[in-house]
Parts: sequence; C-alpha cells; structure tokens
Amino acid sequence: MLDHGGNIDAAIARFGGTNWIDLSTGINRVPYPMPDIPASDWAMLPTQAAKSAVLAAARVAYRTQAPMLATAGAQAAIQMIPRLMRPGLARVLSPTYNEHAAALRSAGWQVQQVTHFDQLAGADLAVVVNPNNPDGQSFAATDLQDLAQKTPLGVDESFVDPRPDLSLAPLAGSPGLIILRSFGKFYGLAGLRLGFVIGSTEDIARLTEMSGPWPVNGAALRIATQALRDDDWVKATILRLRTETAAADALAKAAGWSALGGTELFRLYDTPDAEAAQVQLARHQIWSRIFPYSNRWLRLGLPGGDVEWARLARALAD
Amino acid sequence: MLDHGGNIDAAIARFGGTNWIDLSTGINRVPYPMPDIPASDWAMLPTQAAKSAVLAAARVAYRTQAPMLATAGAQAAIQMIPRLMRPGLARVLSPTYNEHAAALRSAGWQVQQVTHFDQLAGADLAVVVNPNNPDGQSFAATDLQDLAQKTPLGVDESFVDPRPDLSLAPLAGSPGLIILRSFGKFYGLAGLRLGFVIGSTEDIARLTEMSGPWPVNGAALRIATQALRDDDWVKATILRLRTETAAADALAKAAGWSALGGTELFRLYDTPDAEAAQVQLARHQIWSRIFPYSNRWLRLGLPGGDVEWARLARALAD
Repeated sequence: MLDHGGNIDAAIARFGGTNWIDLSTGINRVPYPMPDIPASDWAMLPTQAAKSAVLAAARVAYRTQAPMLATAGAQAAIQMIPRLMRPGLARVLSPTYNEHAAALRSAGWQVQQVTHFDQLAGADLAVVVNPNNPDGQSFAATDLQDLAQKTPLGVDESFVDPRPDLSLAPLAGSPGLIILRSFGKFYGLAGLRLGFVIGSTEDIARLTEMSGPWPVNGAALRIATQALRDDDWVKATILRLRTETAAADALAKAAGWSALGGTELFRLYDTPDAEAAQVQLARHQIWSRIFPYSNRWLRLGLPGGDVEWARLARALAD
Repeated sequence: MLDHGGNIDAAIARFGGTNWIDLSTGINRVPYPMPDIPASDWAMLPTQAAKSAVLAAARVAYRTQAPMLATAGAQAAIQMIPRLMRPGLARVLSPTYNEHAAALRSAGWQVQQVTHFDQLAGADLAVVVNPNNPDGQSFAATDLQDLAQKTPLGVDESFVDPRPDLSLAPLAGSPGLIILRSFGKFYGLAGLRLGFVIGSTEDIARLTEMSGPWPVNGAALRIATQALRDDDWVKATILRLRTETAAADALAKAAGWSALGGTELFRLYDTPDAEAAQVQLARHQIWSRIFPYSNRWLRLGLPGGDVEWARLARALAD
C-alpha cells in the first residue's frame, strides 16, 4: 500500500478525535450540490444513453471532440494505461503522484523517475502530471505537444479544472497522446469514483474493451452530466479557489512557512520540519500530507467554509 | 459491443413507450431498501475502514475466510482475471455469459467454448458460471474442486446467492481457484457497481494491485456493508424468489412455452419463435433477452410487485 493523502482513518487512529478536517488531499471541500438520485440509478445497469450523456457533457466542458471513456476515477485509468502497450521504459516526471510509477511497475515496465522535462524524450512512455502534484509546476501545451510527437505521452490533468488554459484536451485525438481527467477533485465528489480518458480512436477503443461495459455507477453518470454542464458553478468555484489559495498562503506565511507552489486545489509549503508541522495541525484535528522524500514539505488542501477556515487559522497560529 | 440484457434503451428506441419493465436481466426488481447516504460518502475518498467493513460483511455472508477484493461490479473482475496470468488456452463452458470469452480474447487468450464439463480439464484456464446463465445448469462443489486441482479455474457465482449450497466460496483460498460474486443482481442494485473476487493470497494481491486503491464508490461500500449483514432480508427474498419462479413458469407454460431451466433470478424458456415471443412481450413494454445462438430461447427476469406481475400475465396471455 502506497502512502496517500486521504488516509484520514490512520490520522484518527494515531491522534484520536472525531471531528477532523481532512486537508491531506486536493479534493474541493465545497462539493457540487448533490441532486436527488432516483431509485432506478441504483437498481438498473447504467444505460447506453446515460453513458453517452456524460461523455457529451464532458466533451463540452473539456472543449474536445476527441474519443473519450468514463472510468471509475482517474485512478482506474492510471491502472489501465500501462496495459495498453507492451511494457518498456517509462519515464515519469517526478516527484509526483506516486501511483503512476507504481501502476507501471506492476504491469512490468521499467520506470525512471526523472526530474527535468527534457529527460522525458526517448522513453517508450512519458508521464507528466499537469499541473503537477504536489508542487504545482505547469507545462506549456506546445512543449507537451512537441514531446508527444516523439514519445508516447500520458498527461494526468487531475488538477487542471481551475486552469483550463493548461489543458491539452482540445488538442487530443492523435495517437501518442493520452489525457486523464478527474471528476471528483474539482467537483468535490471523490467518493463517486469518476474520471475520464481522452485519446486516439485506437487507444480509447482498447481502454473501453479493458474496462468493460459498466465501469461507472449510475449515480455518478447522472451527477456528472449535470455538474459538467453547470458553467456558473464552475466559474464561481474557480474564483473562490483563487481567493482562498491566496488566503491560505498568507496564513502559512504568518506561521513561518513559505509557499513553494501548488494549484488552486492544494498548496505546497516549505516548513522547518514537516513532521512537526503535521503534528501541530493534527493537534487541531486537521490532517495534512507530508512526503517520504522530503522532511520539509507539507501539502495542504483548502478548508471548506468559515468554520474550517477559522480552525486552520487557529492551528497555524498555535 | 456485445449484445446484452439491460439494453432497455434499444428497446425504447425500437418500440417506443416510456413505461417499460426490464426483464432482460437477472437483476432482482425488488431491491434492498436504500439507506440514507451521508454527503461524506460522495465527497471523500473511500476510507480503509469502509473497505475493510464491506469485506468483513462479505466474508460472513459468503461463509469464507479466504482473501477477497471488492471490485466495481463482477464485470470488473471478469475484465481483470485474464490479465492475472500469461495468456494461453482458455476453455469456457458454453453457452454462457458472453463477456468471459470476450474479455479473455481481448487479453490475448485463445478461447475454446466447450459444451461439456469434462472438456474443461487441461486448459490453462477453465471458466464455469455456476449456476449457469442462461440455462441455470449447476455443478457440484466436488466436481469443481476436482477440476481446480488440475486446471486453474474461475467460477462465476453471479447468480448463486439464492443457492448458497452451490457456492465454492467456503472452500476458496488455494491457488488455482478464483470465485466471482456479484452484489448487484441478488440485492437488486446493479447501478451501484459492486462485486467481489475470492481467491488465493497471491491472486487477490495481484488483483488488488491491478484495481488500485479506490475501485468502488463510497455509497456502494456503505449499502453493501448493511445489506450483506441483513440475514432476514436475504431469507425473505430467497423464499419470495422461489415462489415467484414457479409462478413465472406456470404463466409461461399456459402461453405454450416450456421451462428449460434458469435460476431464482431468471427463467429460460423454449418458445416456438424467440423473436416473435420477444416482440409479443415488447408490445406490452416488457423487455426480454433472446440469444444470437438460438431462435427458440427466451430468458426472462422476474417482475417486481403486483402491477408488474399483472402486466406480464396479460402479455403472456396475449
């Protein structure tokens, strides 16, 4: 089992308490409001019409006409992509979300974790998370397109929703480029398990075959079809997140931490001692993410609502 | 796309109407009552505690101590099992659910569809659906165990819930035997997407790696944990299904069809003309399943509730 954010039960087991604010992930804590779910969504197999509707909504939201597949979370796509091709040498721009290297190794790939974009070329598969988790580094569409000309490229856009200008989805559809999108993070509904893969006709056909006829539950298809069409909610959420990332950075700075980057959905801070910083927050029942490869980095999601923001302010001032 | 039951939108497109009763699947139409779903089940990633709870409940319900994994439907397990082993010669006891052969071929296996149990031995992988879909044929645990001694064996127990005496789950855990269970069919909640794989420590570890950390949505974990513990509902449902399969067979017999078999969740009938029989029912907005390999067989799920039963009686008397 890899270490992850979202391991809130480990935090509860270690520190006790029942009123935790989980900021160990980049999941929006002000979720899209849940519509009513008719009983038939639970009872029946998802229909072809429901599957087509969510893809149509996603194509508009992601501004793409390319072939696309809905999966049980972006993670399900991370699990399948290594099995699309004969295993070879994969280069993953790192540090990043650790499941990419893990899924590739599990499928028989040799994995090099490289630290500079220029080192990716020439692999049998290159993987870039854009914007990157945890440092928020972003890559220009032209650079990614140039790379994809030479090297099969997977771009994980799990955190791109607040920065649609960074997305390669409008340029997808050609062989050699596969794009992952997460639904649950920006829309705050990670428990639904929904993501999308966008790519060439051939790759999406193969992934569709691998994932079978009903990979996504009926409630997720319904909710996402509605949420992806809700431009007003998207715009308001992006504005709120931009304001709040600045607020989080200001609180952290006052606590003596410096902002290293991040996205609109999480921030990365340089602290004097990451473990001590995590414990400081945990004493206030706020869970955060630290990393096995750094003793200074702490990643923090954004609180949801005034009560949670006040708790974070108190915890950081402690 | 393989032909399937559950393609109710195709029926609507062909025959019109908006008040269909979908009997084209073996999904119980009197589902387990949905509990309230707290917002956190949608918002958060499923916790380790939620994943452990559903497995604990499933182990009691299925009377097994063997390693187990929850998947996004039994179908997700059908997709993964062909990738557990190096592809070779698979023998699938046929006719049966057509996704087994399709998933195996898609993963590079040579597939022989054999018609007698004795022909399965000696393959690199044998697949048996027990009880079988669509004919309801069942196989003794001792015969399946003997086969698994010689030949790696996958047993799809998607329809076994009303016949726990047929299940090999209590005997699972040794290498060479993998068992699939469906949650959605018997509990009438196919839209949730939940199934289980039971097998050896090594196979379940590999499948867990392949399926990633969060294959199942949070609502499914919660509902199933409650439903799998509800012995009273299970017992009452099995009794009801037994009574109702007899009632369905009596209606079909009066219509001149003869019962070929089936399970407590669906019946298989020999009709003078399967297409004509399907159209007869469709004129009453009842959808059924016919098969590309037979011009006489029609499979029928059981109606849910008095209104639906009356519609079926009228349709069959037409």
